[in-house]
Amino acid sequence: MNKEKYMQLALKQGYIAAKLDEVPVGVVIVDPTSGKVIAKAHNKTMHKGNPTAHAEILAIQKACQKLKINRLREMDMYVTLEPCTMCAAAISFARIHNLFIGALDPKGGAVINGVRFYESATCHHKPNIEHGICAEECSALLKSFFKNKRT
Amino acid sequence: MNKEKYMQLALKQGYIAAKLDEVPVGVVIVDPTSGKVIAKAHNKTMHKGNPTAHAEILAIQKACQKLKINRLREMDMYVTLEPCTMCAAAISFARIHNLFIGALDPKGGAVINGVRFYESATCHHKPNIEHGICAEECSALLKSFFKNKRT
Repeated sequence: MNKEKYMQLALKQGYIAAKLDEVPVGVVIVDPTSGKVIAKAHNKTMHKGNPTAHAEILAIQKACQKLKINRLREMDMYVTLEPCTMCAAAISFARIHNLFIGALDPKGGAVINGVRFYESATCHHKPNIEHGICAEECSALLKSFFKNKRT
Repeated sequence: MNKEKYMQLALKQGYIAAKLDEVPVGVVIVDPTSGKVIAKAHNKTMHKGNPTAHAEILAIQKACQKLKINRLREMDMYVTLEPCTMCAAAISFARIHNLFIGALDPKGGAVINGVRFYESATCHHKPNIEHGICAEECSALLKSFFKNKRT
């Protein structure tokens, strides 16, 4: 399993989002047994006019549709930014096995930061978690996006 | 504003869900100025094969589509059960103004129970919250559903 390779695919989704003026967060969901990418998505809250259309939610939806299952027990998720509270819980509901995170998000994250959902008694499935994969590039993409927004 | 009237409409959605063998949670989103119901939804996780298809997420999506906005700043939500962590955060992202809750959910709730998301520093919009509206009927619907599941 080449974690950097898959995070680069998630980053590619993030770059597409930035071009579309969406907050640049990208996700891929991978079947680690076959190595195949099952779903990829980027943030589409503006495009869809839907505040819940985060990359993780869209990728889970796509993967479930593709595999015709509603639990992704054997699947891994690669996401460029620490999931927010909504998405951390969605990942738990989807039963994602391994969660690989790029950059951390002290302002909105809910895994290492914020409500740390997976440590809560109301969390009924905790994925294995690794963060810091291609973190500099993941962080730079976001910083560049928000810097351009301010100028 | 007749809160019980709107919670009864949310309950009606819950009863539809139960008939479809979905966990019976219902939601309505209301424009309190006009009194109009903007969106109604029930849990569809089984039907859609999507673990994120909770009533609140679907109702927010419908309301945003209908009003062609991605923030529901003037809108009220009535939900039969205390929102989970995913939905509590989605409600915050959607900027719902007033959140009326039927029954509380110690096992999965995230408003009064669990991570109490709206009290977190990573929550950037907190709705006004009232719970206990038609609570007995909301609770009875869920209890009856799970009792039937076990027998």
